[in-house]
Amino acid sequence: MTEITILPESQLRQCVHLDMEVLGAIEDVFTALAGGKVIMPPILRLDIEEHHGEIDVKTAYIPGLDSFAVKMSPGFFNNPKLGLPSTNGLMTLFSAHTGLVEAMLLDNGYLTDVRTAAAGAIASKYLANPNIDTVGVIGTGSQARYQVEALKLVRDFSNVLVWGRDAGKAAACADDIAEKLDVSAGPCASIEDVVAASQGVITSTPSSEPLIQSDWLHPGLHVTAMGSDAEHKRELDPAIVAACDLFVCDTRAQSAKLGELHHAIDAGIVDTDVAVTELGQVITGDAPGRQSADDITVCDLTGTGAQDTAIARLAFQKAQRMGLGTQFET
Amino acid sequence: MTEITILPESQLRQCVHLDMEVLGAIEDVFTALAGGKVIMPPILRLDIEEHHGEIDVKTAYIPGLDSFAVKMSPGFFNNPKLGLPSTNGLMTLFSAHTGLVEAMLLDNGYLTDVRTAAAGAIASKYLANPNIDTVGVIGTGSQARYQVEALKLVRDFSNVLVWGRDAGKAAACADDIAEKLDVSAGPCASIEDVVAASQGVITSTPSSEPLIQSDWLHPGLHVTAMGSDAEHKRELDPAIVAACDLFVCDTRAQSAKLGELHHAIDAGIVDTDVAVTELGQVITGDAPGRQSADDITVCDLTGTGAQDTAIARLAFQKAQRMGLGTQFET
Repeated sequence: MTEITILPESQLRQCVHLDMEVLGAIEDVFTALAGGKVIMPPILRLDIEEHHGEIDVKTAYIPGLDSFAVKMSPGFFNNPKLGLPSTNGLMTLFSAHTGLVEAMLLDNGYLTDVRTAAAGAIASKYLANPNIDTVGVIGTGSQARYQVEALKLVRDFSNVLVWGRDAGKAAACADDIAEKLDVSAGPCASIEDVVAASQGVITSTPSSEPLIQSDWLHPGLHVTAMGSDAEHKRELDPAIVAACDLFVCDTRAQSAKLGELHHAIDAGIVDTDVAVTELGQVITGDAPGRQSADDITVCDLTGTGAQDTAIARLAFQKAQRMGLGTQFET
Repeated sequence: MTEITILPESQLRQCVHLDMEVLGAIEDVFTALAGGKVIMPPILRLDIEEHHGEIDVKTAYIPGLDSFAVKMSPGFFNNPKLGLPSTNGLMTLFSAHTGLVEAMLLDNGYLTDVRTAAAGAIASKYLANPNIDTVGVIGTGSQARYQVEALKLVRDFSNVLVWGRDAGKAAACADDIAEKLDVSAGPCASIEDVVAASQGVITSTPSSEPLIQSDWLHPGLHVTAMGSDAEHKRELDPAIVAACDLFVCDTRAQSAKLGELHHAIDAGIVDTDVAVTELGQVITGDAPGRQSADDITVCDLTGTGAQDTAIARLAFQKAQRMGLGTQFET
């Protein structure tokens, strides 16, 4: 008989916010990944094509920590027709000493949203120019909003341009951002125009076609591409990987399999065994980051199980401190 | 806001028993696997060597079914020193249409025990001679007991011999079997003697060395090896794979990676691309099973995510019928 703590989304939203504490926890993850000691197996992915659905399972053990998470992320893309969100999910936190379940975090994807946005902010913190005035956002979903919100924690921009396939959604997203962050924000009719006007660009889409072309890059630009997390997804012209001054990814293994690097290798733009800088190496100083204000930097984020372990641990710690959660005997 | 059902081990034990209904559900799994339409990604495995622990995550979608399970199985082998069981775990049941969580089955590994034992019984049902009098069991854990109990549903044996590294545990296991199944049962001092006296042998150990030697095989013998489910585990002399008349496995992909076939390939006993019969092909008649009473048959079971989906669905259906479970809003 063991006792576990169950935390529903509402309580997780009470204790975890997109703030500097979360950014610190996620920055620590990339530092740990750069140390080479994190044990992170390949993502388990189940595709249910007949229902336009998929589930990803991610996990990682970060040495020295006394627990680890297994995160299950379903994405079912017929859901909006049923009035349901496409993405969902939950995390299970296990003791790293006994394998006993400590907590079930029924977050419906909230913690994934937060840890993903935090990674975007860390990428920009280390790669974007210090002073950026205009931020471009490609995509209009909740993650697009979270990315801009997280970026505001590390860069003091005053203007946001939003592009989406649906102009109405782009306008609504811009309105939400303007209201939340006290910046000016508006929709933009073309991706090329967004890129041209921005010093920092975030792509946050499920696209399977390149959205940003290599010849649109301009001196000083930083791009964070966080949409691609599966073989068929991509947001960047593969030529960008070679054309930019610095291409960084969260983990080389995942980017080469599921991210933008994968498509650059497939297209013959770079060699299969090309050396690529990981974000953690820039944070620790093991690899150079931006070298000049004119550098063009790109960061590809595929999302790591190590981030899931970190955010799940932080959520559980905060919930315990706040006395949240339901105890359940198994 | 969605509602999920949480079922603790005690309630799952109320509704799921090792009976013909479970055997039928697991037999259907192997039939489905033989049809080639089951979507079953490779097992996700995280090793935490510093704590002598591991976690396996398995899943599968069986076309036509409206839900699928993700099963998390931790094994932490220092636990007995702490008075805790080594293995543990839980299953999450998701809608195959929306990806929403339907139920959390906090079974602490009970459902895995049941579905694993059921697979052993199905293997013997289709491969062992109809009349077997003596069954040999190598291993003394709970799964050894479950295997013999499940076998009793399909074969009317009257005698059981148990071998374990610890003679006391072997005697205790034999006593439990004798009491539960109304058969005579006793410990045996050598594996060779167990094999010599038995018409059916079950290996249920975490061994990383071969336990049964090829030259111990005798006409009419059936062996079910269910212990190996990881690269380093093995219970059979690899020569057995070629020496027996029929080698069958639950899935070729898993046996060649994690099971006995893996070691036979490594030892050069069989070619890397050797054709191997899967259990489901024998059930459906797509491949021949035992051809004569003198045939020596071997079945290697690594444990499949498809079995987890089947047992989780059955458990949830039965729990709903019995009004069990706690509703939880997420």
